[in-house]
Amino acid sequence: MIITDARVIVTSPGRNFTTLKIVTDEGLTGVGDATLNGRELAVAAYLTEHVVPLLIGRDAGRIEDTWQYLYKGAYWRRGPVTMTAISAVDTALWDIKGKQAGLPVHQLLGGRSRDGVTVYGHANGTDTDSLLTEVDRLIREGYRAVRVQSGVPGLEKVYGVSDRDVYEPADSAVPTETVWSTEAYLDHLPGVVARVREEFGPGVKLLHDVHHRLTPIEAARLGKALEPYALTWLEDPVPAELQSGYRIIRRHTTTPIAVGEVFNTIWDCADLIREQLIDYIRCSVVHAGGISHLRRIHDLAALHHVRTGAHGATDMSPVCMAASLQLGISAPNFGLQEHMPHTAETDAVFPHAYRYADGYLHPGDEPGLGVDIDEDLAARYPYKAASLPVNRLADGTLHSW
Amino acid sequence: MIITDARVIVTSPGRNFTTLKIVTDEGLTGVGDATLNGRELAVAAYLTEHVVPLLIGRDAGRIEDTWQYLYKGAYWRRGPVTMTAISAVDTALWDIKGKQAGLPVHQLLGGRSRDGVTVYGHANGTDTDSLLTEVDRLIREGYRAVRVQSGVPGLEKVYGVSDRDVYEPADSAVPTETVWSTEAYLDHLPGVVARVREEFGPGVKLLHDVHHRLTPIEAARLGKALEPYALTWLEDPVPAELQSGYRIIRRHTTTPIAVGEVFNTIWDCADLIREQLIDYIRCSVVHAGGISHLRRIHDLAALHHVRTGAHGATDMSPVCMAASLQLGISAPNFGLQEHMPHTAETDAVFPHAYRYADGYLHPGDEPGLGVDIDEDLAARYPYKAASLPVNRLADGTLHSW
Amino acid sequence: MIITDARVIVTSPGRNFTTLKIVTDEGLTGVGDATLNGRELAVAAYLTEHVVPLLIGRDAGRIEDTWQYLYKGAYWRRGPVTMTAISAVDTALWDIKGKQAGLPVHQLLGGRSRDGVTVYGHANGTDTDSLLTEVDRLIREGYRAVRVQSGVPGLEKVYGVSDRDVYEPADSAVPTETVWSTEAYLDHLPGVVARVREEFGPGVKLLHDVHHRLTPIEAARLGKALEPYALTWLEDPVPAELQSGYRIIRRHTTTPIAVGEVFNTIWDCADLIREQLIDYIRCSVVHAGGISHLRRIHDLAALHHVRTGAHGATDMSPVCMAASLQLGISAPNFGLQEHMPHTAETDAVFPHAYRYADGYLHPGDEPGLGVDIDEDLAARYPYKAASLPVNRLADGTLHSW
Amino acid sequence: MIITDARVIVTSPGRNFTTLKIVTDEGLTGVGDATLNGRELAVAAYLTEHVVPLLIGRDAGRIEDTWQYLYKGAYWRRGPVTMTAISAVDTALWDIKGKQAGLPVHQLLGGRSRDGVTVYGHANGTDTDSLLTEVDRLIREGYRAVRVQSGVPGLEKVYGVSDRDVYEPADSAVPTETVWSTEAYLDHLPGVVARVREEFGPGVKLLHDVHHRLTPIEAARLGKALEPYALTWLEDPVPAELQSGYRIIRRHTTTPIAVGEVFNTIWDCADLIREQLIDYIRCSVVHAGGISHLRRIHDLAALHHVRTGAHGATDMSPVCMAASLQLGISAPNFGLQEHMPHTAETDAVFPHAYRYADGYLHPGDEPGLGVDIDEDLAARYPYKAASLPVNRLADGTLHSW
Repeated sequence: MIITDARVIVTSPGRNFTTLKIVTDEGLTGVGDATLNGRELAVAAYLTEHVVPLLIGRDAGRIEDTWQYLYKGAYWRRGPVTMTAISAVDTALWDIKGKQAGLPVHQLLGGRSRDGVTVYGHANGTDTDSLLTEVDRLIREGYRAVRVQSGVPGLEKVYGVSDRDVYEPADSAVPTETVWSTEAYLDHLPGVVARVREEFGPGVKLLHDVHHRLTPIEAARLGKALEPYALTWLEDPVPAELQSGYRIIRRHTTTPIAVGEVFNTIWDCADLIREQLIDYIRCSVVHAGGISHLRRIHDLAALHHVRTGAHGATDMSPVCMAASLQLGISAPNFGLQEHMPHTAETDAVFPHAYRYADGYLHPGDEPGLGVDIDEDLAARYPYKAASLPVNRLADGTLHSW
Repeated sequence: MIITDARVIVTSPGRNFTTLKIVTDEGLTGVGDATLNGRELAVAAYLTEHVVPLLIGRDAGRIEDTWQYLYKGAYWRRGPVTMTAISAVDTALWDIKGKQAGLPVHQLLGGRSRDGVTVYGHANGTDTDSLLTEVDRLIREGYRAVRVQSGVPGLEKVYGVSDRDVYEPADSAVPTETVWSTEAYLDHLPGVVARVREEFGPGVKLLHDVHHRLTPIEAARLGKALEPYALTWLEDPVPAELQSGYRIIRRHTTTPIAVGEVFNTIWDCADLIREQLIDYIRCSVVHAGGISHLRRIHDLAALHHVRTGAHGATDMSPVCMAASLQLGISAPNFGLQEHMPHTAETDAVFPHAYRYADGYLHPGDEPGLGVDIDEDLAARYPYKAASLPVNRLADGTLHSW
Repeated sequence: MIITDARVIVTSPGRNFTTLKIVTDEGLTGVGDATLNGRELAVAAYLTEHVVPLLIGRDAGRIEDTWQYLYKGAYWRRGPVTMTAISAVDTALWDIKGKQAGLPVHQLLGGRSRDGVTVYGHANGTDTDSLLTEVDRLIREGYRAVRVQSGVPGLEKVYGVSDRDVYEPADSAVPTETVWSTEAYLDHLPGVVARVREEFGPGVKLLHDVHHRLTPIEAARLGKALEPYALTWLEDPVPAELQSGYRIIRRHTTTPIAVGEVFNTIWDCADLIREQLIDYIRCSVVHAGGISHLRRIHDLAALHHVRTGAHGATDMSPVCMAASLQLGISAPNFGLQEHMPHTAETDAVFPHAYRYADGYLHPGDEPGLGVDIDEDLAARYPYKAASLPVNRLADGTLHSW
Repeated sequence: MIITDARVIVTSPGRNFTTLKIVTDEGLTGVGDATLNGRELAVAAYLTEHVVPLLIGRDAGRIEDTWQYLYKGAYWRRGPVTMTAISAVDTALWDIKGKQAGLPVHQLLGGRSRDGVTVYGHANGTDTDSLLTEVDRLIREGYRAVRVQSGVPGLEKVYGVSDRDVYEPADSAVPTETVWSTEAYLDHLPGVVARVREEFGPGVKLLHDVHHRLTPIEAARLGKALEPYALTWLEDPVPAELQSGYRIIRRHTTTPIAVGEVFNTIWDCADLIREQLIDYIRCSVVHAGGISHLRRIHDLAALHHVRTGAHGATDMSPVCMAASLQLGISAPNFGLQEHMPHTAETDAVFPHAYRYADGYLHPGDEPGLGVDIDEDLAARYPYKAASLPVNRLADGTLHSW
């Protein structure tokens, strides 16, 4: 089966998505998510100018060879733009392979390891009371796991918390600038988590996302402070370019650690995993090399008692979510899947077989990934520049957002 | 698709093979090799008594879940008998999955990463001249890589060397006892390899198998002594229960090291791989947990610059060879595949799609593994007890064979 | 003294046991336990087909050589089936050796290091009150050490806890499937242990068995939570194929750690011991290579401040218990011996010299092991297929049982 | 001083270059190289769509803040496309800063640490004789250091060797595919280097580039084999995503090791440097975060006895070369600068102050970088798609190029 066409579709049904669609001579098509939030057009150009011309005429069945061809052949390896482009190709080829086999992709990955993919929802509150309301809502919707994020007194805006209905951080063409105080945050957060645990008891899994804003010793302090509330995980406590930075956290606290949404290859987390410095690896299909590569990350993790915790914010399109669920339903060491529902417009542009029910996402049984892009509808939502915010300390120092 | 039957077939067309055949309600069947040389009936009993009853009624598509079910569910994990039994189930289910998809299994593993599977042949000589004759024969048959084994003056029998046409070490119901001298071997071998390299030049890959008979420091000495002859690998230099034993070898020589045919799980080689103490991992499908688990070993290896070097002596049936070729054609870090042709009787009992041509084995394009067992024919060759030899030093001390 | 016969006896006086009986030309006989719970017939076949033919004619006195012969001679080393078979041979030969010497085996191991073998009993309760009743009963029976296991609210069945008189987990030909929740367990257990300690004071040694169900960080959290109640040990907190997994636990808690009932050789625990990651090594005679090999594990442990904590559930026959007591009475670093009394039927099939009194087991002074099998009686209890349970999470994921 | 404009110029005077030009309200302009060979338009889009809009209105003097803004603010860090874009901005701002100060940039970096920047030239030969001719030519041109690359018998094309006048590997829109043989290369190369050393004596520094094509143990063997010829460095012996891979090489040979042209941040080489696994760090300004970041890499290197060895092939534009020389003339731990002269067309498009004389490059004393882009001339050379080659083994396996 030969690739005869490949096209990059940028659409913005509420937010921007970049999608690769591969077409074969047998009429089968496959889709791959290529969305890199705030850098969408760089990936689009990478694909359109430098990858698509290389795909035409290739054997669609040679997924591994194509991955190596794009990875090693580029000479310049790794990084978010490159790996997102490769991910898109890989995902689309697995979609085609599944359709060729007449099987959902998870069947090609070893079949179901569970009945459904347990998801966690986002409960965000500008204050603790509104947060409690949100947690309550999610639990009533069936969620067994909830990420709790809260406003911090004295800080105008905090990651994950919005006063609007839908939280989309990439809210402006030029980045919004927010002010951060580690001290205020560390002082405030434990009490918030305490309130949530007190209110809802031990039956719900609670998670919290630090969003890379602490140093290791600060994260260690926070991890210890949160131990009484038995978090399922503390996410992204520290930027992870220096993987050994996590050793400090690990020495001080038994609060489980999750990280990975910004990682692009297995090399970004190999030391974290081999040294057992983390408990959940949260890489996404779209940013970590597609199904072929992410499966390898998951397998390395399994060997070291690390479970998956797939990123699933709305910056991954339904194409990525479908692929993530194929992995999630089949990986033996699946942990949790993030679930932040897309808008109705997005769901319409990307018709999909997966569905939420009672705390689980189910990938469905359609051949391939079970998702497609409605190109006509997509064309109605043109790209709109939108950047993620930046974060500064009170003195103006640029800080991790 | 539900498993409705599973049967264990023991046959001896020249040598003993144990095979598992799984049958589904949709009429598709799959085969898995379950041969453990010299311990065939232990695996057969493990499967017949303790595994087959658990398979009936299970979903044939849930390969990963079945693997975990048999591995974790047994409570008693690892080891050759257990893992060979699990391998057989896993392999047979991948065979079924491929047939269900209408695709050769390597398509489900990511497609071809190369045109053919480079194999190495066995050149054995009781003396150096007869060894040179054998190397010459193999090169004329197209082999690009040759394992060279030689008799040692003063030793009556040495592993890999036979005065008969076909070398089958399991040659007696009660083990043959041979006498070993590390000193004689270390003194003799380098000259033999030198002769072979001198005779055939740099164009042929040369390998040598130590068969676990040295200590690390002895192996380090041998590795250094062989450096001028640029071996592709030195195989099984030291027993590997203590993986850190290989550190000594590694410090002293750049001769590449291969090991793995006796390993049963990723835990038997994880330290060897993570510390980059070896260069080729030689686990087999039949003894290392089947396609599902061996793929994970290969992926861990790839991360650490270790290539595959699949075991392929005649104690693995054509079913195992077919599975090994499916992995070998698709794994990005494939290195070499051992090839020791089966007898015509064995080939007849196990009709297969793979074929040798010009130094390569080709898995063929049949759906599934591309191999089956002719049960009627198999029934004509009843099991015949045969044990591998044991090895003693001159003073009678039991030594690794 | 020459081995003239060896036979494998499978009997089920309440539960299945596999026993090897070796007969010599001088009329002396020896017995070895070969029971591998749920995989009995695989070991039986390993022995009958592949080991017994090799024993006939061998010198019964060469225990060490026979061990090496079966271990290295098999080529395929390690694992539960292989090592259980070797254990049976080794144990039977020590039994013969003792009888030949006219001495109990512990005399050949260096004689008594203590007056009796301190045992711990099982207190199981579906709820805390019934557990307290059980602890009280054991203390009144003289036990100085008690393993406490409790039901968990919301979970129907939990390892070690039964609503029947006798707890035998292998309760069904096809495995029973149970549902597990780490969260519910971690939330519930510390309160239970607190109650027991509060009720019975510091005078009784308390133990708890996690049964391999946690990840390292979860186990670390549990260890910390239990510190106020001064456990003697926390058992099998984490699956141990990856021995370095125990480092995480060790960094976070001073709760002593015990592990080993699933280990088959010294290589399964050498890193755990050398890094001093554990405090008690719980290998059994029957699964860890017999008296010869287990003694070596104990010696390595002694060097690293690790004490013994021999497995002694009812899946080891009285033959294994007798052997375990010979080691326990003599090893300088003995810690504790598990004691879960056999049924009267079992005790009748295996007449033995050892006896319980006042918190101790005493091996007795009969020559050899002081145990035998009544083959006529054994024949009245035919094998009955019985599998250990499997364990799943609420979403259906297969979990360690 | 405020940034009022920034534009991305893609031009192809013989080969493709991407250049960023920043314009300020005070009329000062700065240039930065943004060329990523074979992926030029991805960087162009990254800059045009996602970076330029953020630059307008910013203070041109806040170089550090802008670096952090683009690095941390993007959320998705690292990788060739992202870091090349950041490098271009950083380089252009340093150019402006120099002009503002009326000083060459090296004055702002601490002033000259030496009189000139020692460069090495490329001597390539399809056979050894033609290579010797090239080395001779370079020495006569004043080069004190020469990189020697040679054709390999049996291989049609080898990296760095061309039968045309100018070697530009990106020679085709769709990648050229070449065939590689590690065995042939390892067999051939030592003799070539021996010949060169023999011919030209100890007075010339010799270097060799492996181009990431070996495994660690193969590289170790090569390093040992080359020891008699006293290489100044062996370059890029092994792909370096797994930095610990270099430990193997280091244990076996004293041949100095250089690596870095594909690295994008300090995290790609921090382990290599801290463990002193390399001797020269060859990162380039354009791909490793610009002057600000590369200076930090150099400083970490200095701490660990590692010298610089800046990449300087023709895929870096004269803008990058100018920046590299500003660093090279000032860094205390400068080692060598690669020098592969650009075509006359390229030199015309990028008028520059640096000049070659007698084995040195001299950055000149113009304010800023001493380089500019002639935009009118650049416009006459439109972009022409060109990909770097890919490399396969004889069996078709994709290999590092």
